[in-house]
Amino acid sequence: MNYFIVYAHPEPRSLNGSLKDFAVAALVAAGHQVRVSDLYAMKFKASADAEDFPERDPGERLVYHRASGDAFHGGTQSPDVAAEQASLLWADAVILQFPLWWFSMPAILKGWVDRVFAHGFAIGVPKPGTKQWARYGEGTLAGRRGMIVTTTGAREEQLGPRGLNGPLEDILFPLTRGLLFYTGMDVVPSFVVYRTVRLPDERFTEVANAYVERLLTIQTTEPIPYRTENGGDFDERGVLQPSLGEGKSGFDVYRK
Amino acid sequence: MNYFIVYAHPEPRSLNGSLKDFAVAALVAAGHQVRVSDLYAMKFKASADAEDFPERDPGERLVYHRASGDAFHGGTQSPDVAAEQASLLWADAVILQFPLWWFSMPAILKGWVDRVFAHGFAIGVPKPGTKQWARYGEGTLAGRRGMIVTTTGAREEQLGPRGLNGPLEDILFPLTRGLLFYTGMDVVPSFVVYRTVRLPDERFTEVANAYVERLLTIQTTEPIPYRTENGGDFDERGVLQPSLGEGKSGFDVYRK
Repeated sequence: MNYFIVYAHPEPRSLNGSLKDFAVAALVAAGHQVRVSDLYAMKFKASADAEDFPERDPGERLVYHRASGDAFHGGTQSPDVAAEQASLLWADAVILQFPLWWFSMPAILKGWVDRVFAHGFAIGVPKPGTKQWARYGEGTLAGRRGMIVTTTGAREEQLGPRGLNGPLEDILFPLTRGLLFYTGMDVVPSFVVYRTVRLPDERFTEVANAYVERLLTIQTTEPIPYRTENGGDFDERGVLQPSLGEGKSGFDVYRK
Repeated sequence: MNYFIVYAHPEPRSLNGSLKDFAVAALVAAGHQVRVSDLYAMKFKASADAEDFPERDPGERLVYHRASGDAFHGGTQSPDVAAEQASLLWADAVILQFPLWWFSMPAILKGWVDRVFAHGFAIGVPKPGTKQWARYGEGTLAGRRGMIVTTTGAREEQLGPRGLNGPLEDILFPLTRGLLFYTGMDVVPSFVVYRTVRLPDERFTEVANAYVERLLTIQTTEPIPYRTENGGDFDERGVLQPSLGEGKSGFDVYRK
């Protein structure tokens, strides 16, 4: 299997770095192909701006998503962006691994999303033979598995249901459903390491083995049963059918 | 009143840019003080990394939040970070204005958060005389108003309750509660412009005036009634008291 790990941590000697190295070694030992985009090591350009489109008329007003679509279709994308898209297409499983900073990705990883998930590639993809968009369960990255892997200093109960910070599954919804599922991937539950500041050394192996287990079984893990856009659960305005999700609220209604 | 607008759009001639210019002019005309951090124009450094701490021993393992605390307390922060903190302290109202990209902030604004909201300043702030943290309704930025202002190409009903993309109020929860309220601000409902791709010119004035109205009334607008951490709603583990939020689920339970 082909694993693509997009990894964003500024310190190679961090828990995140050690987990990534451990996982890569284990996947290779098991006979898999692995690509890693180590965004900090690559000094990946984080800010999506006009410099991404050197062939554009600089006097023209920049509409970023439109420019990204023109560059994607015209073959004039920045080489770093095109390389990441190629790895996404190559992959059977896409892993985004990062420390949870302010309840989301570090900026360098958000920039990877903003720049790589171009119009025509990840968004604005028509569904052939229809007037629909290929998104939310359909799209360029359909057939792939996606997983969020994140570390946090917070305690698990404070990121659980009714926990102080909010349930992490809901906090990650913009990523799991809004990004991975949006582009067609089947998304498995996130792998989360809590309370990293106090992680005793003896727990490292336990956590690292659990991570590897999740990676090795990703193809057979039950995906989060998000509702698709074009499967009949949403009406023509894009609102959930009244008969669905009864008695649920919040993001619960987006799961079957 | 002192308004601090943190603005992140790569194109000054965008709807976002026009709204920002209109709002600044109206606030100044009404006798207010306004500071704008135009992150793209400033070429604000987006990636939080070791370069933020030139006085640190480069051989030492980087724990970013710890290094940010050392720099904050030691007066060795990067000047761009210290300047943004000064503007936050100066402000009575803090506005984060940005286009909604992948259901969150553009990377350059996420980087502003990652770098400026340092340990000791925005997180890891002890509550004097207690063993508690000053966060979620308390903290360095208490007494200030906070508001998210965002634009999106999506239709309002697709970002409403049961809408295809999820309710925007919940999608923004990591920002409204996890960032603004976390640091002590009173957060008013977000100001959102939908369907910007098709925004007719005649609607611009209407939208811009509505934005100004929200800014001028921010001090008297009812804040979102988020539950505080230290007000008794959460038990000693940081889990919501069983008697609260009955019949609610998702992020609804975090509002009184």
